[in-house]
Amino acid sequence: MTAAEAVKTVDGWYCLHDMRTIDWTSWKLASKEERDEAIQEFKNLLTKWEDVEKEENGSNVLYKVVGQKADLMLMILRPTMNELTDLETELNKSKLAEFLQPAYSYVSVVELSQYSGNSSADDPKTRERLYPILPKWEHMCFYPMDKRRQGDENWYSLPFKERARQLYEHSKTGRKYAGEVKQVITGSFGFDDWEWGVTLFAHDAIQLKKLVYEMRFDEVSAKYGEFGAFYVGNHLAKDDMDDYLHV
Amino acid sequence: MTAAEAVKTVDGWYCLHDMRTIDWTSWKLASKEERDEAIQEFKNLLTKWEDVEKEENGSNVLYKVVGQKADLMLMILRPTMNELTDLETELNKSKLAEFLQPAYSYVSVVELSQYSGNSSADDPKTRERLYPILPKWEHMCFYPMDKRRQGDENWYSLPFKERARQLYEHSKTGRKYAGEVKQVITGSFGFDDWEWGVTLFAHDAIQLKKLVYEMRFDEVSAKYGEFGAFYVGNHLAKDDMDDYLHV
Amino acid sequence: MTAAEAVKTVDGWYCLHDMRTIDWTSWKLASKEERDEAIQEFKNLLTKWEDVEKEENGSNVLYKVVGQKADLMLMILRPTMNELTDLETELNKSKLAEFLQPAYSYVSVVELSQYSGNSSADDPKTRERLYPILPKWEHMCFYPMDKRRQGDENWYSLPFKERARQLYEHSKTGRKYAGEVKQVITGSFGFDDWEWGVTLFAHDAIQLKKLVYEMRFDEVSAKYGEFGAFYVGNHLAKDDMDDYLHV
Amino acid sequence: MTAAEAVKTVDGWYCLHDMRTIDWTSWKLASKEERDEAIQEFKNLLTKWEDVEKEENGSNVLYKVVGQKADLMLMILRPTMNELTDLETELNKSKLAEFLQPAYSYVSVVELSQYSGNSSADDPKTRERLYPILPKWEHMCFYPMDKRRQGDENWYSLPFKERARQLYEHSKTGRKYAGEVKQVITGSFGFDDWEWGVTLFAHDAIQLKKLVYEMRFDEVSAKYGEFGAFYVGNHLAKDDMDDYLHV
Amino acid sequence: MTAAEAVKTVDGWYCLHDMRTIDWTSWKLASKEERDEAIQEFKNLLTKWEDVEKEENGSNVLYKVVGQKADLMLMILRPTMNELTDLETELNKSKLAEFLQPAYSYVSVVELSQYSGNSSADDPKTRERLYPILPKWEHMCFYPMDKRRQGDENWYSLPFKERARQLYEHSKTGRKYAGEVKQVITGSFGFDDWEWGVTLFAHDAIQLKKLVYEMRFDEVSAKYGEFGAFYVGNHLAKDDMDDYLHV
Repeated sequence: MTAAEAVKTVDGWYCLHDMRTIDWTSWKLASKEERDEAIQEFKNLLTKWEDVEKEENGSNVLYKVVGQKADLMLMILRPTMNELTDLETELNKSKLAEFLQPAYSYVSVVELSQYSGNSSADDPKTRERLYPILPKWEHMCFYPMDKRRQGDENWYSLPFKERARQLYEHSKTGRKYAGEVKQVITGSFGFDDWEWGVTLFAHDAIQLKKLVYEMRFDEVSAKYGEFGAFYVGNHLAKDDMDDYLHV
Repeated sequence: MTAAEAVKTVDGWYCLHDMRTIDWTSWKLASKEERDEAIQEFKNLLTKWEDVEKEENGSNVLYKVVGQKADLMLMILRPTMNELTDLETELNKSKLAEFLQPAYSYVSVVELSQYSGNSSADDPKTRERLYPILPKWEHMCFYPMDKRRQGDENWYSLPFKERARQLYEHSKTGRKYAGEVKQVITGSFGFDDWEWGVTLFAHDAIQLKKLVYEMRFDEVSAKYGEFGAFYVGNHLAKDDMDDYLHV
Repeated sequence: MTAAEAVKTVDGWYCLHDMRTIDWTSWKLASKEERDEAIQEFKNLLTKWEDVEKEENGSNVLYKVVGQKADLMLMILRPTMNELTDLETELNKSKLAEFLQPAYSYVSVVELSQYSGNSSADDPKTRERLYPILPKWEHMCFYPMDKRRQGDENWYSLPFKERARQLYEHSKTGRKYAGEVKQVITGSFGFDDWEWGVTLFAHDAIQLKKLVYEMRFDEVSAKYGEFGAFYVGNHLAKDDMDDYLHV
Repeated sequence: MTAAEAVKTVDGWYCLHDMRTIDWTSWKLASKEERDEAIQEFKNLLTKWEDVEKEENGSNVLYKVVGQKADLMLMILRPTMNELTDLETELNKSKLAEFLQPAYSYVSVVELSQYSGNSSADDPKTRERLYPILPKWEHMCFYPMDKRRQGDENWYSLPFKERARQLYEHSKTGRKYAGEVKQVITGSFGFDDWEWGVTLFAHDAIQLKKLVYEMRFDEVSAKYGEFGAFYVGNHLAKDDMDDYLHV
Repeated sequence: MTAAEAVKTVDGWYCLHDMRTIDWTSWKLASKEERDEAIQEFKNLLTKWEDVEKEENGSNVLYKVVGQKADLMLMILRPTMNELTDLETELNKSKLAEFLQPAYSYVSVVELSQYSGNSSADDPKTRERLYPILPKWEHMCFYPMDKRRQGDENWYSLPFKERARQLYEHSKTGRKYAGEVKQVITGSFGFDDWEWGVTLFAHDAIQLKKLVYEMRFDEVSAKYGEFGAFYVGNHLAKDDMDDYLHV
């Protein structure tokens, strides 16, 4: 047996998904001054990150998670892994973090796989995909995933062409949702416990479900997709932070 | 190989299952005034939710979970995911929540799959199934589930007709329990860790067990059903709240 | 393919297994008065439950678990699920519970499957099995289990006759231990995370091991048995409670 | 299909592996008097257990675990399960236990399987294996294991002779390490979550690794071995306790 | 069936990977004096370890983990397992440890497998690989792994030659990254829950991802590789410790 041909990738910004749970009881026990200080400091962080985004040196979004898995879901893009750590450490040292518990995190990098010809980092369209300004749409969904390697269902033993074909078919399902759902694929080989992270944005939450359900029938998902935990949330604008945290 | 044809769905209200454990020791340490305040505030929430139900803008039920998995099991239906988050946040900020620990939650949406012809949202019967007023029967059971995708047992590779046939057979088992067990199916692709949530209501708890056991022999369950944790509970009426929480 | 014929069951008392860990450090920090009060209240609960047992309206046993999984293992039988919840809530509100941490619980119902003819609830022998007064033998073991549904090893696709045959063979192994080991089978479809709970009582702990080991070679276990966590314990009599909890 | 013939066992002392983590921060917060008292009381327990060992009514060893899984690993042998529980309870009530957190435990019984003829409990060599005085060698390793029951790889469906042959081959690998590694096999059917516990002692830690690696190529391990968590540690003598716990 | 021939190994220094999470809230609550003392004491430990490294009696590195899995990742090499435990205990007793929570650890030993001829510990190149001075490159990644033993995909049943061939092919992928990624393989049979630990160092984080992704297509990974959790981090120099811990 010959090993299957590996696929090349072009990689963009590093990515941190950071989910946290609010300890509402401690939050209520804090004084109004402490709470105001914590909110103001966090909003200053958000403003600083917005400035980075304006300069196109990174991007970020903030969502409220539905259900008990977490309350806040941050997704941050930066040119280096060091910047991600610095940002995470700054958040950890902030006042608000005293009232947050870690819930889940995911480390990855924006990835374009080169199954259908080679992307050039000089191409503006490629650059836009490698260094995306994340949409602030109403809903967001995140989940990590693997490609199966089990007996006859081994993605990494399939010929390059067959993988390319299945991914092309898969992309056609995605394209049906153009304008409805925006997708960012990040790779996490060597960085985190699954092989990829999938982040979806939608104006209407039901489109997230319809896309994920329809895609499950695509051969590549039906036979090779293995999925981790799903996080779904509603957009949280900086201006709604005071309301959201008001107790 | 051609991918199997995806099934269409019609989707109704968004759904949150929210299980919580009471910290009885802290509850006993609270003053009677605090406890009374917490109970009253929670009953006000229940009343508010009842009003929403009367207006047919959503529905909700509350059960006491048997065993250590949780104490309280809420199931809430609302037209949007934002309303679910608002409601969850309001509960999190409430006094009673200071004595509750998160135990499990599940995010989904009421789903009608279109295997046997298309439902019309204009049809009153369809509307009743998409926007159901949840029964307040004596017992409730909740569990999440997947359809298997493994080697020869891959639901998502089966032809549409074969899936339709198996689900039709399965529905016949369900129909034997008409009047005894009421079932609500919610889909959670893209929203939570399993593909569906199943909620069952019964007057007599033994009917829950008989239905779930009998259905396991249906081909669709025997070969394709993968099940998560089961939560079973007894109905908790608003008027019994004081008694239940009395220490 | 036709679905396999489901088996009918006759069901008896509802069952709660409730394992708890003692927080010895908090227990030692409590005053002697508090401890005495907690012990006395718990012994009163035990006496109340003994009275229920004398009236044949239920049954219960209490064991000390070996190892760190738990310290106390209660098994309670009652005619309704509501009574189980009431009893559990009463225990949760008790003084002793302030020093106990939940370790595991299991919700099920005494089950007789009808593979070899139909039991009649009028038959006194059947009644004895459906509403058993639990033995207070020296040792007890509990574990939950499933029947496998995987590829060619799918219990729920086997013909009724074949299942009956395998269970009959299995019962012969059990019968070799008559007088040495007493077994109670409870079903938990729709109630808890596994399909059945198995509770074994023995005068000599080694008989528990010998039976479980020997049974693993029975076809039904070798090919179809999937087992959860095992809890093993030594009987704790009400009169030994003071000694056991003395610090 | 006929069920495979079960193997008989001869069983010896009951066994408790008890791993605990030291809460160093609390330990440092305690007064020197408290710490001295805790150490002295624990050393008295060790002396008591040494006396039991001298009388050949049991045996015990104490190791320091490497890594974060635990700090202390006790292995205790006693003629009855009741004695194990009494000993565990006495440890739980001790002063030192206020600074220990449970990390893992395993309940089993020394087992000799009768694949190659029958052992007689009258035979001194058999007695030595059933009631072993545990070596106090420099290093110890513990792990639980199962024999696989999956499709064509089902240990419990293999003919007796084939199992005996594979185990005999396996024993030859073990014998190469005679004098270097001492092995104690304990069975835990009905007692704990795996089927056996394996405890290895070595003067040189590398011999533990070499033996476990080499054995993995034996047919019985390669095809049928399923392994739980591994704990490895360095011997902790009673006289080194003061030093080890000095802060 | 004859068992496959086991491979011999030459083993070097023992290895501890030790990941810890900083409790920033407690850290901020400590006085400046306490924090300064804790940092100074930890830096003294680092200096002591650097001295050991200068004497070539061991080696160590310290990285900041990206994401919530941990904050600090230590990797320590020492000639004996006892030294690892002593070092771990000294760290546990340190002031800084009062603000650290255990996150993950892994125990192993530097391993050279002898698939392609025998290494001699007298050979300086072999010595360098058995007793490596760890690079202080910008990024580090750690993950544990197993070789699969499942049905037809059983690494431990493959002929020696076939395993040697696959590993040789695999090594060619590794060699493409020479100068970009440095790899240390440690074996953990009998020591920890997986069979090997893989530690990678890189100047550019993207090379970690590219190597791990490309290797997944190698036959030995595609068919036999099973991977645990991945930890990735950025180098933390002793001189940056004050800054990093400044609050």
